Amino acid sequence: MRDMKRIPFDEICQELTRVLLTVGFEDSTAKRCAKVFTENTCDGVASHGLNRFPAFVTDIRTGLVRTRVEPELVNSFGALEQWEGKRGVGILNAEKAMKRAIELSRGHGIGCVGLRNTNHWMRAGTYGLLAAEAGCIGICWTNTIALMPPWGSAERKIGNNPMAVCIPRSEGPVLLDMAMSQFSMGKLEVLSRRGEGLPLAGGYDENGELTTNPNAILKSGRALPIGYWKGSGLALVLDLIATFIAAGDSTREISQRDKETGVSQVFMAIDIVSQMGTTNVEEKVNAVIQDLLDAPTLKGFPKVRYPGQGMLTSRRENLEKGIPVDLQLWRMIQQM
Amino acid sequence: MRDMKRIPFDEICQELTRVLLTVGFEDSTAKRCAKVFTENTCDGVASHGLNRFPAFVTDIRTGLVRTRVEPELVNSFGALEQWEGKRGVGILNAEKAMKRAIELSRGHGIGCVGLRNTNHWMRAGTYGLLAAEAGCIGICWTNTIALMPPWGSAERKIGNNPMAVCIPRSEGPVLLDMAMSQFSMGKLEVLSRRGEGLPLAGGYDENGELTTNPNAILKSGRALPIGYWKGSGLALVLDLIATFIAAGDSTREISQRDKETGVSQVFMAIDIVSQMGTTNVEEKVNAVIQDLLDAPTLKGFPKVRYPGQGMLTSRRENLEKGIPVDLQLWRMIQQM
Repeated sequence: MRDMKRIPFDEICQELTRVLLTVGFEDSTAKRCAKVFTENTCDGVASHGLNRFPAFVTDIRTGLVRTRVEPELVNSFGALEQWEGKRGVGILNAEKAMKRAIELSRGHGIGCVGLRNTNHWMRAGTYGLLAAEAGCIGICWTNTIALMPPWGSAERKIGNNPMAVCIPRSEGPVLLDMAMSQFSMGKLEVLSRRGEGLPLAGGYDENGELTTNPNAILKSGRALPIGYWKGSGLALVLDLIATFIAAGDSTREISQRDKETGVSQVFMAIDIVSQMGTTNVEEKVNAVIQDLLDAPTLKGFPKVRYPGQGMLTSRRENLEKGIPVDLQLWRMIQQM
Repeated sequence: MRDMKRIPFDEICQELTRVLLTVGFEDSTAKRCAKVFTENTCDGVASHGLNRFPAFVTDIRTGLVRTRVEPELVNSFGALEQWEGKRGVGILNAEKAMKRAIELSRGHGIGCVGLRNTNHWMRAGTYGLLAAEAGCIGICWTNTIALMPPWGSAERKIGNNPMAVCIPRSEGPVLLDMAMSQFSMGKLEVLSRRGEGLPLAGGYDENGELTTNPNAILKSGRALPIGYWKGSGLALVLDLIATFIAAGDSTREISQRDKETGVSQVFMAIDIVSQMGTTNVEEKVNAVIQDLLDAPTLKGFPKVRYPGQGMLTSRRENLEKGIPVDLQLWRMIQQM
């Protein structure tokens, strides 16, 4: 276990902004990216927050990610648009795409944006939450390099294709944020760093045997899809839909590059709050959540939670007490 | 193993039509329903085809499903509409809803229909295929009565909420058709009838232990979500979105009835073929599929397949040789 220190939200934001200004960002975009990295850590998703910041800076330095390009509208079909990401900053491109999907949903009930040639967006949930804050159901996913073998194969061919689904509620959103692998790469890395095993099989080792050892899975590159054949199929169709809607590259093409870049993403917003008169429905949804929270638990399990509940707890605590940061990582960032 | 007999497509259709005409259907709707039940069996999904036909007829006779109502538009938001299903025939309502989503996609790029107060649609794939035949990506799902415990609980609270995702291709569609449980209820029933066990844990027995015995799962009513906590969350958000978009009932409310009825469904169509000029993209998609088919297999596994591939094989074979039907079931239908 490494040394952790609680650091205030604003202090982290300022430090990350400082670093980003040294690698070519403009003031406004540096601040927006720094805020997203800080929020992700604050919400308990350090694997897609500060832990990933040094690699992000490296990708800027090597030119894999371009800081001064703007995404561009390529095709419009009414409620559906295709955008070109120009290998720009994944966070900024994705924010813009979801904001555009929200705008489209205002006039059409539903809005959908396909974004091609973009880069890693860090946390899928960021853009789901953006939609929910605007009173929309947000659904978004990205393809990735190949990280999982399809069902029955030993060779990685399909991405883990993380997806967020976010549903607005006055009491706080329901946010499902998940990759199609049983464990996200970020989670495998965190457990590997801590020297811990997985609670259940999360992939194949290099001999093709299911294993709970995160290092063996990171080494073989063979993560297990959720639900075996089902997640294998789900990840595949997410890739194909993203490829179609964005008219972009598939996991297959992305995997031919040295590093993951030029990914395809889909953003959907459904404008429920301002258009549908949802008071009644929100009562129904709240009753579902309450029923879930009241469910009797299996022996040895904690109380049942809804997706996103843990995030809200982390956020509240970390905003109050400061965000727990790995001290060694923090010093590294301070020296950047 | 029961006796099976191969019966031609048209003969099955005629027989089912005859039965449906005796329970209150009009000629045209009887024919449409009979065709869907026959197609489902022809495509290798007997669990949602002929095997379910006697129960369907019972639901008509008891008045749970109403044969002579038409779904009605309740709200329109442009590319998104809400329809009231009036507890009509699930198949007919769902066909109408997906056709309407396809129409909406012609003008908006994407179309979405929420359908409330409808009944079991049999096979999700039916409506995905409908979209693909119209050159659209089709995405649809339904909520159900509670069939699975949420992660960490012993009590069923969430539906298995089957979903179809269908992607059109000249060579034949990619069709993912899956419930959020590791095994569909239909599959559990088929294996139970055959006296076979599951290849891996598919739910909890009445003591809360994971089991591969389909009877134990059917008895406890505790099916395992795909990917444990992930499928639990996914099934939940599908229910919440369906509830919102259809302004309909949630799994919680549906489960309070004696039998499953009044479910909420979502239909999305994305008009890729006629609007997007997808020749390039279809090449990309075909390359992904070919790459998948060429993947080396794990020891003891058959060749890797894409979702829907088996269906096309079954369909071709059964159209040529006749559809394999359980002889005992066939005689029962003939006496209805």
